[in-house]
Amino acid sequence: MYVNGKHYESVWFENNTLKLIDQRKIPFSFEIYESRSYESSVNAIKNMVVRGAPAIGVAAAFTIAQLCIEAKNLKDFEKGISNILISRPTARDLFYAIERVSSKVKQSKKIESARKLSIEEASLIKNEIVDACRRIGEFGKLLIADDFRILTHCNAGWLATVDYGTALSPIFLAKKDGKNVFVWVSETRPRLQGARLTAWELKNEGIEHKIVVDSACGFLMEREMVDIVIVGADRIAANGDFANKVGTYEKAVIAKENGIPFYVAAPLSTFDLKTKSGKEIVIEHRSNDEVKYIHGIDDKGRDTNILILNPDSDIINPAFDITPAKYVSGIITEHGIVKPNREDIESIIKKGTH
Amino acid sequence: MYVNGKHYESVWFENNTLKLIDQRKIPFSFEIYESRSYESSVNAIKNMVVRGAPAIGVAAAFTIAQLCIEAKNLKDFEKGISNILISRPTARDLFYAIERVSSKVKQSKKIESARKLSIEEASLIKNEIVDACRRIGEFGKLLIADDFRILTHCNAGWLATVDYGTALSPIFLAKKDGKNVFVWVSETRPRLQGARLTAWELKNEGIEHKIVVDSACGFLMEREMVDIVIVGADRIAANGDFANKVGTYEKAVIAKENGIPFYVAAPLSTFDLKTKSGKEIVIEHRSNDEVKYIHGIDDKGRDTNILILNPDSDIINPAFDITPAKYVSGIITEHGIVKPNREDIESIIKKGTH
Repeated sequence: MYVNGKHYESVWFENNTLKLIDQRKIPFSFEIYESRSYESSVNAIKNMVVRGAPAIGVAAAFTIAQLCIEAKNLKDFEKGISNILISRPTARDLFYAIERVSSKVKQSKKIESARKLSIEEASLIKNEIVDACRRIGEFGKLLIADDFRILTHCNAGWLATVDYGTALSPIFLAKKDGKNVFVWVSETRPRLQGARLTAWELKNEGIEHKIVVDSACGFLMEREMVDIVIVGADRIAANGDFANKVGTYEKAVIAKENGIPFYVAAPLSTFDLKTKSGKEIVIEHRSNDEVKYIHGIDDKGRDTNILILNPDSDIINPAFDITPAKYVSGIITEHGIVKPNREDIESIIKKGTH
Repeated sequence: MYVNGKHYESVWFENNTLKLIDQRKIPFSFEIYESRSYESSVNAIKNMVVRGAPAIGVAAAFTIAQLCIEAKNLKDFEKGISNILISRPTARDLFYAIERVSSKVKQSKKIESARKLSIEEASLIKNEIVDACRRIGEFGKLLIADDFRILTHCNAGWLATVDYGTALSPIFLAKKDGKNVFVWVSETRPRLQGARLTAWELKNEGIEHKIVVDSACGFLMEREMVDIVIVGADRIAANGDFANKVGTYEKAVIAKENGIPFYVAAPLSTFDLKTKSGKEIVIEHRSNDEVKYIHGIDDKGRDTNILILNPDSDIINPAFDITPAKYVSGIITEHGIVKPNREDIESIIKKGTH
């Protein structure tokens, strides 16, 4: 998508250099992080220069290619891999990408021929993700009528997925088709991915939007100011229950109560058929400091971290919640929109693998 | 209630001096603001040293008493009043308190005799509010069983009502009775009254609690981690619909969806029978800067204000929302707990005025 009128992806590879939009700096500054070595790319992933599971996966794929370029021989290559495997322990897409690129390398007999193959495979992974997101947008945009007011939560945009995004892709493509769209962006405490990343993406695409505190989304829905809710997903169970950024469940319940369609946008890789229902998904609790402190820009333009609440109080900080399938109108995938039930989910996954 | 083991009210009067707990400084420091003149008390109300409608009303009553003390004659007194009337345009309790104290003054023939009367009337108003809040606590505590986990929103505590509070009063009194209670405190963006004021009040009373981002309250309810929700109210319509801090509506809907009792605590003065339903209540929208900037304490202990979101995005900032009566289990008043319907509300108001 676009930044100041120029097309960007959030992750790309050029002259053996991994290039990342530095997501730690958005929206306060726009900087490209350039990593010329395997080691520095591993650190960039660790330090969250890049976030969003698909974007992390693509960054990891090119990082493996860099390892291949630097390695003197195949043994050298294998030794290096262990490093990146521990960079972000929970990111699934990361393991998938590493597996795919390194198996290509291992198929080669010589390191010299493996180098070209590893870059090709990483590029292929990137293209597949971008293509899936574009297709999610093509299907999803059909749900968006002219003058629609869409509510989204957190950031399921192109920063997280290299290009297009998941929940935001239908919005970008509806706008591109000339539809008049408006987006309500819930700020998404504690890390404010909505107010920082989603708002920044929408602004760059010239899409009208307003930021709203998480608590006021119910107010908007109750007042008939929302036509559709579209969110992303971190994991979808076989029965259609799904995990996403905390606050998603609330929005789904309030949407149903007010007769507002509620859609989830995610590639087929987000489905996990081994997980039978949402009850089996373990919720990650993150550091209390995420709630207790906040960073931003002071009146002199300096990046500043401040304490914002009662310092003697305890905190609970669940990062995700589970939304039962009964609140979901449909799931937008790269192979079409599917109803959230076991049968339809299994059938679309079959379609995707053939 | 208590601060560092010592009993305080948030507003009191001593040696012709108005004393206020400076609520702008809580929870980062505890300071008593002392105002020795009418003019300085008007400024303290204007500058939000004191917040919460009942606390503002009591502060205004004593401010009028100060005017009476300073006035050379009754004409002088009347001229001065106009000043305070514009200090906070929307606070109802303020007008009520001014009206009561100044009508006492006008009944006197001489300014000398009016001085004592004005202080007595202001003290009476204070005692009535404190007494109503204590009684709300006495009725409300019966809803709280041992080991209950209570969810509250914003600050409906003693800082806002001189002593006891409304939603927090039942919790304080249940604890005093020796019950084991635990409170989930929703942080309450954008101004964080939950994470700052409510958390501070609970900590001072030794009540176990955890702060949670607003968006995660649904997670807690869905996981059966909440036994009862108790919130305050800014205005209750004749049919039981009520206005309160934005986010209250969401909590009410999610509570009902999960079979959790949802109670409102408010004195009878909060009921407005002229307002037939919530639809007639106009919602105040506040400055976007409340969402855009946040203040807190930097690593050197300095009070700092920072920008926290995409600076080029627009914002919507409704301060309240309306919760329809159908989501309310009951309203806790100083004359008992009432069902949220016209008949029962009219009957308890009759009881209160006889």
